[in-house]
Amino acid sequence: MYPSSINDLIESFKMLPGIGEKTAERLCFSILDMEDENVEFFSESLKQIKEKIHRCPNCNSITENDICDICVDTTREKSLCVVEDIKSVFLFEKMGVFKGYYHVLDGLISPIDGINPEDIGLEKLMDRIKKDKYQEIIFAFKPSIEGETTSLYIKKILSDTDIKITQLASGLPMGADIEYIDSLTLERALSDRKEIG
Amino acid sequence: MYPSSINDLIESFKMLPGIGEKTAERLCFSILDMEDENVEFFSESLKQIKEKIHRCPNCNSITENDICDICVDTTREKSLCVVEDIKSVFLFEKMGVFKGYYHVLDGLISPIDGINPEDIGLEKLMDRIKKDKYQEIIFAFKPSIEGETTSLYIKKILSDTDIKITQLASGLPMGADIEYIDSLTLERALSDRKEIG
Repeated sequence: MYPSSINDLIESFKMLPGIGEKTAERLCFSILDMEDENVEFFSESLKQIKEKIHRCPNCNSITENDICDICVDTTREKSLCVVEDIKSVFLFEKMGVFKGYYHVLDGLISPIDGINPEDIGLEKLMDRIKKDKYQEIIFAFKPSIEGETTSLYIKKILSDTDIKITQLASGLPMGADIEYIDSLTLERALSDRKEIG
Repeated sequence: MYPSSINDLIESFKMLPGIGEKTAERLCFSILDMEDENVEFFSESLKQIKEKIHRCPNCNSITENDICDICVDTTREKSLCVVEDIKSVFLFEKMGVFKGYYHVLDGLISPIDGINPEDIGLEKLMDRIKKDKYQEIIFAFKPSIEGETTSLYIKKILSDTDIKITQLASGLPMGADIEYIDSLTLERALSDRKEIG
């Protein structure tokens, strides 16, 4: 019923996560109202992203260069933050408190979803840990069974080394109302309690 | 901090209504995970829409042809539904109960927003009403001060003709709980009450 180019754009928007028919239609009509040059910029950005962006061969994050900006920076601290996806790298960088290097896994071990240790690119991580001498390896996975499984698995492989291995603290999120915290988090916060001062 | 092509795509998504920084980032990362051919299709759809879609010179709706499919269809009923935007045409067509023609205004009269009668393309509508002989003109604007103002204005211009002029009924939406209906709607539903049977 729509002209075919409108249908195509609606279908395109529907490929995005969380965007259904109604929203896709609304977004499509907003494109019609946009300046030509803005739509061209949008179209070109999509094209460029597939042409220019590729994985950093060292840390598996994304870059437009041969090696990513973080990996080429020799002034960083010699610690390695292992994350489950690319997004986490930029999240930590935005925060600006971590000054070391990153390694991006291809997800977390999850046997229930058929994701086994050999599927998440651990070999590359191990090669890197062997090659570069890191003072500390930090696991920054989401607190979940998959996160714990992956942490424990890597820790076991590294058990014959003397590298310090840590993971992000779990506990109460700042500002949270204790009443509304789930019992698993509360239990963890209690068992990982910290001496004051 | 992001590679520049990522930044460009995030900025592109942010041009869309209701999409802020966080959502734009999430959508951008979902594009990275998409198949190359799907991203190309998306990029191409955006390009095509500005190249192919234009206003129908007759009814002001959109089309890829010289004249839109509805205007060229001579089998339709000789009534004209005047709407405030293109979206309304497709909404009515999807519904499938209206079998006449449409005319799309460039919005509604709204002096408070500086939109005066000469800004919404009324001349074209008047020419069309004069040229084609419609049995009925139906105003399908949103129930609002702007909608009422526009209806009354056009009705006044047409006061020397004997065309039947109607507008969509206002009243209670189907399935609505009377308790939660705003008083203006309730007042209108009462004053426009209808004899049963």
